[in-house]
Amino acid sequence: FLWYPYNLDFDFSVMAQFQNFSINNLGDPFIESNYGVHSRQFEVAVLDWFARLWDLQQDEYWGYITNCGTEGNLHGLLVGRELFPDGIIYASCESHYSVFKAARMYRVECVEIDTLVSGEMNCADFKSKLSQNPGRPAIVNVNIGTTVKGAIDDLDRIIRTLEKCGFRDRFYIHCDGALAGLMMPFIKQAPKVTFKKPIGSVSVSGHKFMGCPVPCGVVITRLEHVKVLSTDIEYLSSRDATIMGSRNGHAPMFLWYTLNKKGYRGIRKEVQKCLRNAHHLANRLREAGVSAYLNELSSTVVFERPHDEAFVHKWQLACEGSIAHVVVMPNVSVEKLNNFVEELIGERPRWHEGGGFRVPCVAKDIGQENCLCGVHDKK
Amino acid sequence: FLWYPYNLDFDFSVMAQFQNFSINNLGDPFIESNYGVHSRQFEVAVLDWFARLWDLQQDEYWGYITNCGTEGNLHGLLVGRELFPDGIIYASCESHYSVFKAARMYRVECVEIDTLVSGEMNCADFKSKLSQNPGRPAIVNVNIGTTVKGAIDDLDRIIRTLEKCGFRDRFYIHCDGALAGLMMPFIKQAPKVTFKKPIGSVSVSGHKFMGCPVPCGVVITRLEHVKVLSTDIEYLSSRDATIMGSRNGHAPMFLWYTLNKKGYRGIRKEVQKCLRNAHHLANRLREAGVSAYLNELSSTVVFERPHDEAFVHKWQLACEGSIAHVVVMPNVSVEKLNNFVEELIGERPRWHEGGGFRVPCVAKDIGQENCLCGVHDKK
Repeated sequence: FLWYPYNLDFDFSVMAQFQNFSINNLGDPFIESNYGVHSRQFEVAVLDWFARLWDLQQDEYWGYITNCGTEGNLHGLLVGRELFPDGIIYASCESHYSVFKAARMYRVECVEIDTLVSGEMNCADFKSKLSQNPGRPAIVNVNIGTTVKGAIDDLDRIIRTLEKCGFRDRFYIHCDGALAGLMMPFIKQAPKVTFKKPIGSVSVSGHKFMGCPVPCGVVITRLEHVKVLSTDIEYLSSRDATIMGSRNGHAPMFLWYTLNKKGYRGIRKEVQKCLRNAHHLANRLREAGVSAYLNELSSTVVFERPHDEAFVHKWQLACEGSIAHVVVMPNVSVEKLNNFVEELIGERPRWHEGGGFRVPCVAKDIGQENCLCGVHDKK
Repeated sequence: FLWYPYNLDFDFSVMAQFQNFSINNLGDPFIESNYGVHSRQFEVAVLDWFARLWDLQQDEYWGYITNCGTEGNLHGLLVGRELFPDGIIYASCESHYSVFKAARMYRVECVEIDTLVSGEMNCADFKSKLSQNPGRPAIVNVNIGTTVKGAIDDLDRIIRTLEKCGFRDRFYIHCDGALAGLMMPFIKQAPKVTFKKPIGSVSVSGHKFMGCPVPCGVVITRLEHVKVLSTDIEYLSSRDATIMGSRNGHAPMFLWYTLNKKGYRGIRKEVQKCLRNAHHLANRLREAGVSAYLNELSSTVVFERPHDEAFVHKWQLACEGSIAHVVVMPNVSVEKLNNFVEELIGERPRWHEGGGFRVPCVAKDIGQENCLCGVHDKK
């Protein structure tokens, strides 16, 4: 079960002509450097597209195409730290591991916030933890789709909490939209991630929903913010404000090509398909007596962890504690989902030989109301 | 003038079959993760090759294939900081900008050491600066080929200086071998970079000398050291000890293929060719009255900066102050070098219209003995 689009429905003949060039986007995407084989025009076009998506004017934003979601988080949080050198990073305990890695790398105190059963940040706990450090600015990581449950932190409530606790003008918000950051704008009822709100940066991955065949991502921040990071590098005749130095020049071309080929409407259609298919999977699992949970705006289906390593390996399930998840991407068909459910149901009783099969309790992970174990199932 | 091998003499048909797979080496190269489309076997084979090159046993090293030289430096210096949390980073002022970026990111004090005219670290200055902070451990960045002049810092002398100044067991050495780290082992008379000496890590770039068509690099460290960085990441069923998260899976295959196709002897031949061609270029420039300098073990030719932006752009010269450089890579032919010199000589007098042409003085940058200006030229 591959959550990433690994074997790609991509017209590679278009790209093949560029494959034997070493394309390198050294330095700042907006400044021509002295290395001529670059794809900076494509990079800037992709960045323009994302800036527009998140409501930043062309002359107000800065950004670049990263190597992965981690680099986007490293960049966003570094901007936050440079703006607030004595700030504290606040992040829910279900945030991506790169957030905690960044805190350690950057020598910034990191306070973990509890989550609700859904995986969302618990704003009551956030409030109480903010109040323990009223004197130090807050650098907040907001998850637009957590890694395991696909939960969307409530951006508006987080901002209200910060303002109520007296942090007005003393906070920086980075939105980690690795997966869902690209899906939210295409869902009508979804809360809006936008620079019209007081956020500092947003990052997404390019090899997940977009299906780019090399790991990559996008980070967008406000132009005024990035100045704190920039250093002129004379021998590149460019400026350094990125985490990495040399940057893959094929990735921007893939992203540009995909955005143009699919278009806004094509992406919306794919988002809708993913949500539909994820609901289908969650329903089929529940019908079969497997405890499952799906966040309303997410395509990540969480369910009881299969008790068989071979099965987990075959379907490449990501597991944590007593749960596993499947991220339903555009390449995942209903047929594949059905095959998966049928095999799971067929194999499941065999994993509990001897003692007889009992549905495991996952109430702690996905809530009593979603747990189908002997104690919690009300049917 | 492209210092990187941009248009590649590479059998792409071999690699083409993998191009439409999204290959991602998440997590630790030595631990199978739950994402199945990876090239970890190739990665480990490449790492084994480099560990052997630098004299580390298979069970004594750790490393990974990075996105670029910068990531290798970020990793090496982070290992140093984690081993010596109150250490100071010492780096020559001609070190790559990523070293200073790392110091800033990691909140580590950084002391810049003067250089000799050759670009090498000035060990007398190193000694005097060490003596100003006798109580704090030293994290030293050693350049195996500086960015602008291709200078090789004297590793043995740096180690002796540290030991003489009382830093025994209280230092960490990272060798930044971005370009020349891969050339040195193939030059008989070159000082040896080896883990038999008390160094902590070495990094190189894969898209420069090796000509990999995507930016990448290799970092190797001692297995005992990397434990300070490692964190188990359950949902990947792997361990996190890298800077980035998702990592390009095509790069290891390109590197593996190149190492196997060229072999040890093939690489040695290319190194010799580069040195020969670099000497040819330096000689031709000097014969034509252009001040030029070439470090003995380097293929980076430094010369007076052409006073014409169009010329600089056309030949894609990297410039700093009053000098420019050309890095002679395997793809650069004698014919190309000759064309370059002829055009430079032909154009040069026109850049100084009016006042008549005078050879600019670059004694400050490359030494009086290499300067062919009116004052310093003894001929």
